[in-house]
Amino acid sequence: MFEFKIISKDKHKKARTGEILTSHGIIKTPCFMPVATYATVKTLSSEDIKEIGYQMLIANAYHLYLKPGTEIIKKFGSLHKFMNWNGAIVTDSGGFQMFSLEGVKIQEDGVIFKSMIDGSKHFFSPEISMEIQEKIGADIVMAFDYCPKDWTNYGEVKESVHKTTRWAKRCKDSHKNENQSLWGIVQGGIYPELRKESFEELESIGFSGYGLGGLSIGEPWEKTIETIDFLSSIIPELKSKYFMGLGMPEQIVEMVSLGIDVFDCGMPTRIARTGTTLSWKGKFNIKNSVYKNDFSSLDENCDCFVCKNYTKAYIRHLFHAREILGMRLNSYHNLYFLCRFMEKIQKNIEAGTFLEFKNKFCRN
Amino acid sequence: MFEFKIISKDKHKKARTGEILTSHGIIKTPCFMPVATYATVKTLSSEDIKEIGYQMLIANAYHLYLKPGTEIIKKFGSLHKFMNWNGAIVTDSGGFQMFSLEGVKIQEDGVIFKSMIDGSKHFFSPEISMEIQEKIGADIVMAFDYCPKDWTNYGEVKESVHKTTRWAKRCKDSHKNENQSLWGIVQGGIYPELRKESFEELESIGFSGYGLGGLSIGEPWEKTIETIDFLSSIIPELKSKYFMGLGMPEQIVEMVSLGIDVFDCGMPTRIARTGTTLSWKGKFNIKNSVYKNDFSSLDENCDCFVCKNYTKAYIRHLFHAREILGMRLNSYHNLYFLCRFMEKIQKNIEAGTFLEFKNKFCRN
Repeated sequence: MFEFKIISKDKHKKARTGEILTSHGIIKTPCFMPVATYATVKTLSSEDIKEIGYQMLIANAYHLYLKPGTEIIKKFGSLHKFMNWNGAIVTDSGGFQMFSLEGVKIQEDGVIFKSMIDGSKHFFSPEISMEIQEKIGADIVMAFDYCPKDWTNYGEVKESVHKTTRWAKRCKDSHKNENQSLWGIVQGGIYPELRKESFEELESIGFSGYGLGGLSIGEPWEKTIETIDFLSSIIPELKSKYFMGLGMPEQIVEMVSLGIDVFDCGMPTRIARTGTTLSWKGKFNIKNSVYKNDFSSLDENCDCFVCKNYTKAYIRHLFHAREILGMRLNSYHNLYFLCRFMEKIQKNIEAGTFLEFKNKFCRN
Repeated sequence: MFEFKIISKDKHKKARTGEILTSHGIIKTPCFMPVATYATVKTLSSEDIKEIGYQMLIANAYHLYLKPGTEIIKKFGSLHKFMNWNGAIVTDSGGFQMFSLEGVKIQEDGVIFKSMIDGSKHFFSPEISMEIQEKIGADIVMAFDYCPKDWTNYGEVKESVHKTTRWAKRCKDSHKNENQSLWGIVQGGIYPELRKESFEELESIGFSGYGLGGLSIGEPWEKTIETIDFLSSIIPELKSKYFMGLGMPEQIVEMVSLGIDVFDCGMPTRIARTGTTLSWKGKFNIKNSVYKNDFSSLDENCDCFVCKNYTKAYIRHLFHAREILGMRLNSYHNLYFLCRFMEKIQKNIEAGTFLEFKNKFCRN
């Protein structure tokens, strides 16, 4: 059960709204997915994420395989039941995380790596990744791709494209669960010819949607824009496009204008835990001494429970007293902000005012 | 505004139910107060504490004086507004915490100590403690007492009794806020004659209620029982009695049977953060491997949101993955358990079945 439909299109830009149909509800796009690596969005409960208004989150097959272990989740039926989340779930295959480990050995058949928990040896292959993701039971699963370490190394990027294609074919062949939608991951760095090759090879295998990988890993922002703009022009309109690992509002709005439908990123909650607050007037760090006596809420234009009940001075105090509640309240607010931000993007696309919204937001 | 009335008395034991009237509501006793040292019960929001059902919590004047500073709280009006808590608040004077610091100098006029935050020098006296607690704006404030370091040292305990009396007199003289009820703290260790002396001296000064201090600091449990039993026989029935720093259910039910009305303790939330769960069948540590595949809730007889939504296996996983949500869910549950536990104690006293309840609970 998977379908993607376009609901409306912006007349000036490639921005569009759409709906992703999953076994766990219809997800309105463009959307942002909170990151629940270990079956929880850090500091927050599934009830919080639902209350904020999210319909889909992303977990990580590699992390969940190590902890609590795939079999435990399977015994529960699926990750939804394990973490009490009735919305949709995407799992990343874990390739990206695995390749950044020390001592990882990448072979044609798969990857040998050491557990970051106890140093034990493990092997992941496209087939194993599919099996794990099937057991976890996500609604959308990502192909096991190969992300190059160095985006400036043309040879490595080229190799990653071909390996990703070969692995994607094996993922497709071994993926049997009709309740799960399998998405391919396009590699190719900042090189249009490699991106084209990667996408065309994947499209010939056939996937319901595409993760755009190997970006936001150090390349200049103009190159990111160029690459996404190019990809967006070659990927058919009716395939959903997911920019993997991007989550700052000013970046999201730019990428929506280029046709991106889905985003995820640990950043909004990671920076929340060190005191950075997102607001309609921009980012700020709540630990700053200027907020010591500030009786106003984190964002005067926000109606989340944190902004309705607490002041900047109180939340600043929590951070200075190293109280966990500070991280929790700031995480809740940042995710609430992003959820409303995505809704505004959707509404403005549908009202034909997306460009004005984008320009106004970027000025602030 | 302060009053304490007795609602019902047990026919076998000294247990009683009562009501403490404060400017922030009527508190049914016997009650337990969650500890919000730095203006938050660790990991939990004020909304959580209210939702659980607590009517009163305790904060610490010494900690809040250092962080965020008394003036900031005063600017908000009171701690209630600062932390968005509409229920009642007790503040401990901070003497107990201060005397455990290294390099503290105890004089007749007060205490010189170094801030644990930046090493800066500070001076607390009974008058300063009252001023700070008045600014914080708690409903019940505790006299600045002197708690002996070594409960086995008769001389030190005796000295602490007399210093506590002299300081209590100065607290009473400098305390002017009629919206705050000032409670004395009885010292005297495990020595009945010293306890008697301490109480009689304080009672001649006159306080609305009494904290029973200098207990639960290493003395044998039988001595704690003997001391409380003795104190309970000499303190007039119409004065509320608060056992400072006691919070395990099996201890609480024993002390209620000796006439204690109010309890506080950081323990139920502290142990929650390291995985210990309270339940109607006793304590257990959720990190234990026997819960790896356990689909049941923390406590089958608990209807808190944690028990309604999450399993032992999930919460165990959160602890093993070092996810903050684990500490939060377990803290919520433990406080929920204790709140229902106090309600059961109240109901059983009123129904005349307290002794049966106590015996049954202690068997489990």
